[in-house]
Amino acid sequence: MAADTSVWPDLSGRLIEDDSGRRHVLPVRIYFEDTDFSGLVYHASYVRFCERGRSDFLRLHGNDHRALIDGAGGREPAAFVVRRMTLEFLKPARIDEVLEVTTRVREMTAATLVLEQVVTRGPDRLFEAVVTVVLVSQAGKVLRIAEGLRRVLGGKG
Amino acid sequence: MAADTSVWPDLSGRLIEDDSGRRHVLPVRIYFEDTDFSGLVYHASYVRFCERGRSDFLRLHGNDHRALIDGAGGREPAAFVVRRMTLEFLKPARIDEVLEVTTRVREMTAATLVLEQVVTRGPDRLFEAVVTVVLVSQAGKVLRIAEGLRRVLGGKG
Amino acid sequence: MAADTSVWPDLSGRLIEDDSGRRHVLPVRIYFEDTDFSGLVYHASYVRFCERGRSDFLRLHGNDHRALIDGAGGREPAAFVVRRMTLEFLKPARIDEVLEVTTRVREMTAATLVLEQVVTRGPDRLFEAVVTVVLVSQAGKVLRIAEGLRRVLGGKG
Amino acid sequence: MAADTSVWPDLSGRLIEDDSGRRHVLPVRIYFEDTDFSGLVYHASYVRFCERGRSDFLRLHGNDHRALIDGAGGREPAAFVVRRMTLEFLKPARIDEVLEVTTRVREMTAATLVLEQVVTRGPDRLFEAVVTVVLVSQAGKVLRIAEGLRRVLGGKG
Repeated sequence: MAADTSVWPDLSGRLIEDDSGRRHVLPVRIYFEDTDFSGLVYHASYVRFCERGRSDFLRLHGNDHRALIDGAGGREPAAFVVRRMTLEFLKPARIDEVLEVTTRVREMTAATLVLEQVVTRGPDRLFEAVVTVVLVSQAGKVLRIAEGLRRVLGGKG
Repeated sequence: MAADTSVWPDLSGRLIEDDSGRRHVLPVRIYFEDTDFSGLVYHASYVRFCERGRSDFLRLHGNDHRALIDGAGGREPAAFVVRRMTLEFLKPARIDEVLEVTTRVREMTAATLVLEQVVTRGPDRLFEAVVTVVLVSQAGKVLRIAEGLRRVLGGKG
Repeated sequence: MAADTSVWPDLSGRLIEDDSGRRHVLPVRIYFEDTDFSGLVYHASYVRFCERGRSDFLRLHGNDHRALIDGAGGREPAAFVVRRMTLEFLKPARIDEVLEVTTRVREMTAATLVLEQVVTRGPDRLFEAVVTVVLVSQAGKVLRIAEGLRRVLGGKG
Repeated sequence: MAADTSVWPDLSGRLIEDDSGRRHVLPVRIYFEDTDFSGLVYHASYVRFCERGRSDFLRLHGNDHRALIDGAGGREPAAFVVRRMTLEFLKPARIDEVLEVTTRVREMTAATLVLEQVVTRGPDRLFEAVVTVVLVSQAGKVLRIAEGLRRVLGGKG
């Protein structure tokens, strides 16, 4: 997929590291599909936006879903699965707007990754989530997150 | 799943056979998720409603997706896949309304099933679709539709 | 919509009141649209299922979204809006399964309604949510929940 | 929103004009939400992708949905509405892939716009659609498409 990166360089958002820490930022455009009859963005759309943010956060750290589930690198086939979410809906968003999903690692244990995700529109915070994910094998067993991936996610890559 | 049928008898809609022919009718409630900021039902929602109709149409004829994909009855694992759709959007629908998706067989060949699907609200036709589906093996090969299923779908069961 | 109720009596689920308290139960069938490539139900689908449950819970208490937003009964046009959700994903669900969404009032203040929602498959708890909703006017102002509705929701109707 | 364009220059895709004509190209990443339990992209997802393509095609021609529905420029509040779609599903797509939605004007009359949309993955054509849209006022009346917009869409801007 090297070609796609050169044609659409920002498609997976960007990893940023500066004074406010290491984070991933993904832009999200609001389309018809994301809104509801109230005229605003449908509340479950933010859950989808966060999943896009987590997917591209992992992708830019060298892991895509297909590689995980195919068991690339001799590892057991696996997928990251959401275990817990706490969601705060702060302000509404509307059609045509451009939002940004920012994803950071809050906490990591051998098997668990806790992420903080914020959706903003310019200076406004619209939505906040704390998301606990675990790596689960196809048989449903919780797996240790590989040392290499943990180091990279922890910003020590 | 026999229990569910007794608790929620209409959950998969109903097969009807009378003077206007053999058909399947599934009620669909319009929720927030189905609408968009225009205040009306989002156009792609009708495509989802039709898929629900086709799934329950097959289910009431004795076939669910899991049985097909697990290769039940000694058959090759397979799934019905949409090849072609023609969609007409006639009138809008709104939140809280109850629509009905009616599905009929228009045409059947050894490998192809052409269905007519109409979405109505009381006497009003809101949406019409003609949908061509084929049965495809997990390797991607088009399969013959089993004689028994064809007989049943054709109303000769 | 009286006609629809007689044709599809269970379409909005059922209000139940017995030893384990007053609650609303809505059956949900798992279709293609609810699953993802992992073979399981997509995590954000549960958020949609809960919204269906809340909508029908309110409907069976005499309030639909259109009446609220049209300002029926001389009230200011308004809509229930989600402010906070805590979600626990306990066990996976799969295509063709029948789940039940159970909704209860946990807490009510003048302007806030806290609901408990559980998704089950037979005896198994798959998903739990605690959802805080507020009634918001079209101008974005938080409104008091009308005394009548509060009494009904509180089981004193 | 000028700022967003400078930060994420490709977010709305690109207008291209060369030997194979004038067209709009939008990249689409496949996320969990777009797939179903078959392991492939859910068929209705292509309908959503096409709507994103049409929205950004109009946006890069100077029209967004909010301007239309707010009646900007002294025009009657309006929205483009889909009247007819013909869809061909040619090849499947999978999680993590990058597709491109290409949109062209096939035909224009005073009130109707017929668009051709193709979804590709590198050299492979996965999906084709012919989509008829009309401009409809909030009262539901079909409107003439403004001369300026017609000229621009027709590539004579």
